[in-house]
Amino acid sequence: MKTIGVFDSGFGGLTVLRELLPLVPDARYLYLGDTARLPYGSKSRETIARYAISSAKFLADQGADLMVIACNTATALALRDIQKALPIPTIGVVEPGAQSALATAAVSPQKVDRSHVLVLATAATTQSGAYSRTLNSLGLRATEKACPLLVPLVEEGWLDQSAHVSVTLDVLRIYLLEAFEQAPDANVLLLGCTHYPLLKPLLETTLNALHHPMRIIDSAAATANAVAKLAVEAPPAVPVSTPECIFYATDSTEKFKHLGSIFLRQPISKVELVDLGG
Amino acid sequence: MKTIGVFDSGFGGLTVLRELLPLVPDARYLYLGDTARLPYGSKSRETIARYAISSAKFLADQGADLMVIACNTATALALRDIQKALPIPTIGVVEPGAQSALATAAVSPQKVDRSHVLVLATAATTQSGAYSRTLNSLGLRATEKACPLLVPLVEEGWLDQSAHVSVTLDVLRIYLLEAFEQAPDANVLLLGCTHYPLLKPLLETTLNALHHPMRIIDSAAATANAVAKLAVEAPPAVPVSTPECIFYATDSTEKFKHLGSIFLRQPISKVELVDLGG
Repeated sequence: MKTIGVFDSGFGGLTVLRELLPLVPDARYLYLGDTARLPYGSKSRETIARYAISSAKFLADQGADLMVIACNTATALALRDIQKALPIPTIGVVEPGAQSALATAAVSPQKVDRSHVLVLATAATTQSGAYSRTLNSLGLRATEKACPLLVPLVEEGWLDQSAHVSVTLDVLRIYLLEAFEQAPDANVLLLGCTHYPLLKPLLETTLNALHHPMRIIDSAAATANAVAKLAVEAPPAVPVSTPECIFYATDSTEKFKHLGSIFLRQPISKVELVDLGG
Repeated sequence: MKTIGVFDSGFGGLTVLRELLPLVPDARYLYLGDTARLPYGSKSRETIARYAISSAKFLADQGADLMVIACNTATALALRDIQKALPIPTIGVVEPGAQSALATAAVSPQKVDRSHVLVLATAATTQSGAYSRTLNSLGLRATEKACPLLVPLVEEGWLDQSAHVSVTLDVLRIYLLEAFEQAPDANVLLLGCTHYPLLKPLLETTLNALHHPMRIIDSAAATANAVAKLAVEAPPAVPVSTPECIFYATDSTEKFKHLGSIFLRQPISKVELVDLGG
């Protein structure tokens, strides 16, 4: 049985784990949220690489034999460094997201060369240009838009069910209108942050209101599919209903239990505190 | 000549430095923004204490002989720990802010026992209860309100001059209305985060719109006054127009120059990168 390590700076990577659980139920999962040092989105490449490597190594030391860097910022800035530092296969979220955008573009009525992918992400991810490079190498045009308020809005819980959802809708409208100024013909929307799948219904509402239809690609789901292809050697003889998940965090385990349960959409009852020397 | 160390997790402490420069011009200033590990507001007490002590010790090692913890979260959660770990006098922002609220209450038409202080701050500061304890010990009632979106909104620059100021006004209205539900008779507003002085004009607009007048106390200005009392031994013989300021950051010096200049309201041309081993 595979032991799959899933790493993120915080809770967002749980959206990747959530997609993975039904796809690869016959695995053991180790999740680490480096919550003491989050958010990575506003930090420099050197700092992010150092933090991500120490976090991924911790999970490898705990027995992971396949690693998912479920953090767009760490993938965009430091995937090569992490892959070099780890002795096990390591997958990030950028390449699967870009491949999924290509697959969408290829089946849509317009041809690939008419596709223009708009990537929403944190400041550090967009500054790295990793999505543009990867999408361009697949023959797709790309525009990246930094959206620093979206992670705090998701963590504040101002989503569909909230009385304050109008603030989040305003912010989404502002960010999308700013992006369309640079990329008026964008027709594929790639969510380049693992917090953003929680905003998907609100993004659909906003795009409808702006009369700007786009296909939405979720890099969390795309990454889970890529991991499943690597991890599933053979279907399990006996279906396993609940894979074992072990959760680690570098800061408040109470906060991790509370927020993490929202991202995972199932209760998290136990979180182990680890000190990575930050 | 005194060397005054000013420490914050990021840029907010520059609002304290900005108030200090004209009050104590005949000093040398060392400012450290622990930007690689910000924000402290969402982290646990143990983590914040560890980060703050290593940061303050760095400034003491550089020659500071008076230390200002210009970070509400670090003061609220770890001032005692920092004071124990440092061989120099160390002032935080909570006590001066609370004293300033008391002074305001004492001169206002209503008596001190009718005063009710509403403290706006980060989640970690409010969870610590430090402001309530300090204000209560001065005979003032207090209610604390966590406002996690305000720091990102200030850093996004959606302030007075921005086309998107309406979002910030909406968020302020939501936070204040939620606070007034718990504390309908609050009549003094204490800004318990060094980012918030940049929101002062918008807070005044919002309070007017809600027909809820309050005196606004700025803990950055209050702290600068407290430091000045300690630091000014005698007025300088020759007025010094521009005190020397040395800036350190643990992450991107470019971002520090850009955002820091907004908080300090004067250009920052040189920032030294330091590694505190996080």
